Amino acid sequence: MNHPVPNPAADSNDLVISRLVRAPRAKLWRAWTDPELLTQWWCPRPWTTEVRAFELRPGGGFHTFMRGPDGGTSDNPGCFLAVETSSRIVFTTALTTGWRPGTPWMPMTAAITLADEAGGTRYVATVMHPDKATRDRHDELGFYDGWGTCITQLEELALQLR
Amino acid sequence: MNHPVPNPAADSNDLVISRLVRAPRAKLWRAWTDPELLTQWWCPRPWTTEVRAFELRPGGGFHTFMRGPDGGTSDNPGCFLAVETSSRIVFTTALTTGWRPGTPWMPMTAAITLADEAGGTRYVATVMHPDKATRDRHDELGFYDGWGTCITQLEELALQLR
Repeated sequence: MNHPVPNPAADSNDLVISRLVRAPRAKLWRAWTDPELLTQWWCPRPWTTEVRAFELRPGGGFHTFMRGPDGGTSDNPGCFLAVETSSRIVFTTALTTGWRPGTPWMPMTAAITLADEAGGTRYVATVMHPDKATRDRHDELGFYDGWGTCITQLEELALQLR
Repeated sequence: MNHPVPNPAADSNDLVISRLVRAPRAKLWRAWTDPELLTQWWCPRPWTTEVRAFELRPGGGFHTFMRGPDGGTSDNPGCFLAVETSSRIVFTTALTTGWRPGTPWMPMTAAITLADEAGGTRYVATVMHPDKATRDRHDELGFYDGWGTCITQLEELALQLR
């Protein structure tokens, strides 16, 4: 009764990236769940990430604040919803620390799954939005380029870990 | 790392009801978690409740649809966030089945806790909102009367269970 639900099937309000990453699952997990490492790949360089909350458990705060080279910023308070070691992280911007409802500029829930596959790890990010307009806006803001670049940065970092 | 967070301290965006209910915890839990029983106390009579989803696990759908005697309706899709047998249920309207962001008319997360106390069970409902305006709107809609009546209905039902 307490097992979290699996990821729902992607629907038309979702954006999905599926990539075969050349790093092992355990190293990807480490690069994802150590906030010091997360800052090194979380947003496309030369943007930088400040981790303002990182409490890796359901309801725990996950808050990133990004800065661009020209003074732009992006503030994303949120919380974790599910944490399954080395296999899945689900987080949202619709809720903040302690599951409090938030007022996100981009309401979304992201489910990240990691699975062993020949050559490395299958990395799937399923990003769910409340409606098609929000999904399309996220797409137009460069979702695929942005998240794709970050996954490449994550892969490169994970391959450097001992 | 996977233990959910405890309830956060109530803040100014919250509405809180704390009641000593004369029924034992196990019966209150049963009346809460059996959807057939839930419909008997979930909204102040003569309003009626239809349970459209009740998947009691984190991320599982929790969707109630209420009808009033004069044709009014209230549609509340949401999902469960934490389920701790006989002690705590957390649910939200900000997310729906599978943690998908929703478009709620009343965005809130409710944490219900049950604890043994002399004379029965301490029942606490902490209802969190994204901002003070939403909290005040919920208050003005009759939150304390409405939720208070439902807790009385829940108590009466639980006392009748064998």
